[in-house]
Amino acid sequence: MGIDDLTPEFSPSAQTSGSNLAAIVAGLRHSREVTHKIRHQGHVRELPCRATLTQIRDGLLAALFPSHYGCSNLTDETIDYYVGHTLSRTLGALTEQVRRGLLLLEPENRARFEEADCAACDIVRDFAAQLPAIRTALVNDLKAAYRGDPAATSLAEVLLCYPGMRAVIHYRIAHALTKLGAPLVPRMLASISQTETAIDIHPDAEIGPHFFIDHGVGVVIGQTAIIGENVRLYQHVTLGAKRFAEDETGALVKGEPRHPIIEDNVVIYAGATILGRVTVGKGSVIGGNVWLTRSVPPGSFVSQAQNRLAEEE
Amino acid sequence: MGIDDLTPEFSPSAQTSGSNLAAIVAGLRHSREVTHKIRHQGHVRELPCRATLTQIRDGLLAALFPSHYGCSNLTDETIDYYVGHTLSRTLGALTEQVRRGLLLLEPENRARFEEADCAACDIVRDFAAQLPAIRTALVNDLKAAYRGDPAATSLAEVLLCYPGMRAVIHYRIAHALTKLGAPLVPRMLASISQTETAIDIHPDAEIGPHFFIDHGVGVVIGQTAIIGENVRLYQHVTLGAKRFAEDETGALVKGEPRHPIIEDNVVIYAGATILGRVTVGKGSVIGGNVWLTRSVPPGSFVSQAQNRLAEEE
Amino acid sequence: MGIDDLTPEFSPSAQTSGSNLAAIVAGLRHSREVTHKIRHQGHVRELPCRATLTQIRDGLLAALFPSHYGCSNLTDETIDYYVGHTLSRTLGALTEQVRRGLLLLEPENRARFEEADCAACDIVRDFAAQLPAIRTALVNDLKAAYRGDPAATSLAEVLLCYPGMRAVIHYRIAHALTKLGAPLVPRMLASISQTETAIDIHPDAEIGPHFFIDHGVGVVIGQTAIIGENVRLYQHVTLGAKRFAEDETGALVKGEPRHPIIEDNVVIYAGATILGRVTVGKGSVIGGNVWLTRSVPPGSFVSQAQNRLAEEE
Repeated sequence: MGIDDLTPEFSPSAQTSGSNLAAIVAGLRHSREVTHKIRHQGHVRELPCRATLTQIRDGLLAALFPSHYGCSNLTDETIDYYVGHTLSRTLGALTEQVRRGLLLLEPENRARFEEADCAACDIVRDFAAQLPAIRTALVNDLKAAYRGDPAATSLAEVLLCYPGMRAVIHYRIAHALTKLGAPLVPRMLASISQTETAIDIHPDAEIGPHFFIDHGVGVVIGQTAIIGENVRLYQHVTLGAKRFAEDETGALVKGEPRHPIIEDNVVIYAGATILGRVTVGKGSVIGGNVWLTRSVPPGSFVSQAQNRLAEEE
Repeated sequence: MGIDDLTPEFSPSAQTSGSNLAAIVAGLRHSREVTHKIRHQGHVRELPCRATLTQIRDGLLAALFPSHYGCSNLTDETIDYYVGHTLSRTLGALTEQVRRGLLLLEPENRARFEEADCAACDIVRDFAAQLPAIRTALVNDLKAAYRGDPAATSLAEVLLCYPGMRAVIHYRIAHALTKLGAPLVPRMLASISQTETAIDIHPDAEIGPHFFIDHGVGVVIGQTAIIGENVRLYQHVTLGAKRFAEDETGALVKGEPRHPIIEDNVVIYAGATILGRVTVGKGSVIGGNVWLTRSVPPGSFVSQAQNRLAEEE
Repeated sequence: MGIDDLTPEFSPSAQTSGSNLAAIVAGLRHSREVTHKIRHQGHVRELPCRATLTQIRDGLLAALFPSHYGCSNLTDETIDYYVGHTLSRTLGALTEQVRRGLLLLEPENRARFEEADCAACDIVRDFAAQLPAIRTALVNDLKAAYRGDPAATSLAEVLLCYPGMRAVIHYRIAHALTKLGAPLVPRMLASISQTETAIDIHPDAEIGPHFFIDHGVGVVIGQTAIIGENVRLYQHVTLGAKRFAEDETGALVKGEPRHPIIEDNVVIYAGATILGRVTVGKGSVIGGNVWLTRSVPPGSFVSQAQNRLAEEE
């Protein structure tokens, strides 16, 4: 619902006077065009739309898990029609959003528009072909969650209720799109996920199968993090960067590998913070609230007290 | 709005080709039916619906606090009609959702359907009878919040703005339903609450009256936690489990008492983490960022420095 | 969508029986009117509405950043019409909400209604005149974010995806309204922001230009906090109060200065907690997870280990 749908009972009884409004509109124009211009490359006006991406996300969830996220009353006879129709509309809309994201990379000219059109189709076609594999990965994450949480009573409960599961679904979709070269849209999907789950996973991060975040609020997984198989995290865990490289102008270098590498079968308990391009070796357990800025070998058990001793050495 | 409501300006200009789409739909079918089947007991297709439960939650809020969450322009003459009508629709819709949750527990057959129908009616009828008592408890929580926060200027401000209050409202509704035997729906209500408040309270937890969470982001209250009267928590507090019991197969034991017991009149400051089936005695104060895995007697004051000394003993 | 819009497939199949419903409605009435009356000053029934304020927020975003948050397909010729129309509707609706907030301060009588009407118009007129300046401040925050995050690839990405940016937008709008004397509405805007970003900034806080919160989940900035220019915060940072003054009845004193002062060019890393009316001097760096309850001079670097030594002195 937009501003024209405000219910009648809230229709303004006192309008801002015409001349006053004109001054404000002129002031905003001056800010946009002269003093504080931020339009991409000066001219791009078509940007990916968060509201549409939210609907696209809903469509993808419904296609991947139609009984859980789609329509009820589906039968063996009708379910494929539902999935096919949903995907058809969703992928078409996604193509348009990806196209808009691609325009941000290129100056506006007719040739580029056509290229962005084709590139968007290619990206979405390749993404769509991956959907069965994405579903496989998500079901493996789902089973890891069920095994990893004593409070889980069914797979349906995990799929419908767990913010960690919801965040992983968004991640795997966004990650597939970013690997295929779609700009901006993956990060907007991650942003939608963060709004709903308070879990912040950069789409560029690499996360292996059977991944589970329990509770999850406050988890931050940085852009260049690498996570292996069968890893379990709890709430408030940060896999972050320790310091940022600067170039000769003092500006931060973009994209440097600067986040942790978490190997297979690691468990990281609530509140632990791991910073920098350090490695947590296979099978390690990082205790709650640990502050870790060094690598640890496979099979390590790091508690807060031990870690303080290590810091003091 | 569903996928068929995508606004015309975003109608897909490039459709995924028919044959390509058929392959994807077939791949998803294969995943759902053969390789990665997760449908509950193989066949359950009717699941509780999050969107509907959100509307039901809105209806319950409007019935409990009609001036704050319902309709404006209510008068002494009209308010009971509004409350009665809202409840009538809401409780009917809730009955259907509870019925779907009950079906998850039972194999699909006609006798069971009828039983689930009756059981859902019983549960919702008994829940509805508790609504005045639930309102009483919530008003007591509201007053505890107003007393406990120097920034609160009115009860209306707390009721309309405080995520901690919002989370407690969801908890007391979900808890009532779970005590009456409704499966899944309570956890879905808790999930809706967590999406909106970033506060994670398991509906099975037992929480006494006059409960206040200030700020609240990141609070986690585990499934078997027990909280007394007049308890106050701040943001990032975790009442969690320390380790999980495993059975002979190595699988985690579900449902074991494994979360803290917080006695009356305790205050737990921001970032404190309390793990395991430990007891925090009456009137204790747990300082910020304390990591506590042992019981403390009534009247304790635990700060980080003290706690580190205690850990080292 | 309200309770009357529940889709037909979820129409209640079993209605709560008439006599049972009457008892519940009577019980709720008794709670509202007799035992647990919370209506403001006993009678106020018109309160600001969160749903409407969410639309107003959308309208303000669209007026401030029309290409990013408004309509696509805007051109140089049409954009001012869009902005002017959006603002006209939005500011009118905002005037009504501010009026309702003002009614909470005053007993209900005809003279007061008229005063609230005028006061609301004055507040919103003065707020609207500040919109170009608010946009300026937000563009400066946007640029600070782009400079401060190695993962940011464009200003559009920051504006569309970063929860910290979203939270700052809400803060600067809410703060302008609270300085102009609007009650309740600023705090409701802050609450809407917190729901979406898990960042909790009290509208009364004073925050200087070029402000950036990276990641941001769990940040809490208290009512009387003062933040200078060019300050950068990370996730889970708390600028909170240490203890609350009580008056002679034991009730908490409302509004006392009790939160930190953060001077210019300070960086506060993830998880740091700073409590009390302490000052962090210019150019200081507060390391992650530091627990700080004392002032530090300009140019300080405070790490966890150093801080523990300082605590033990």
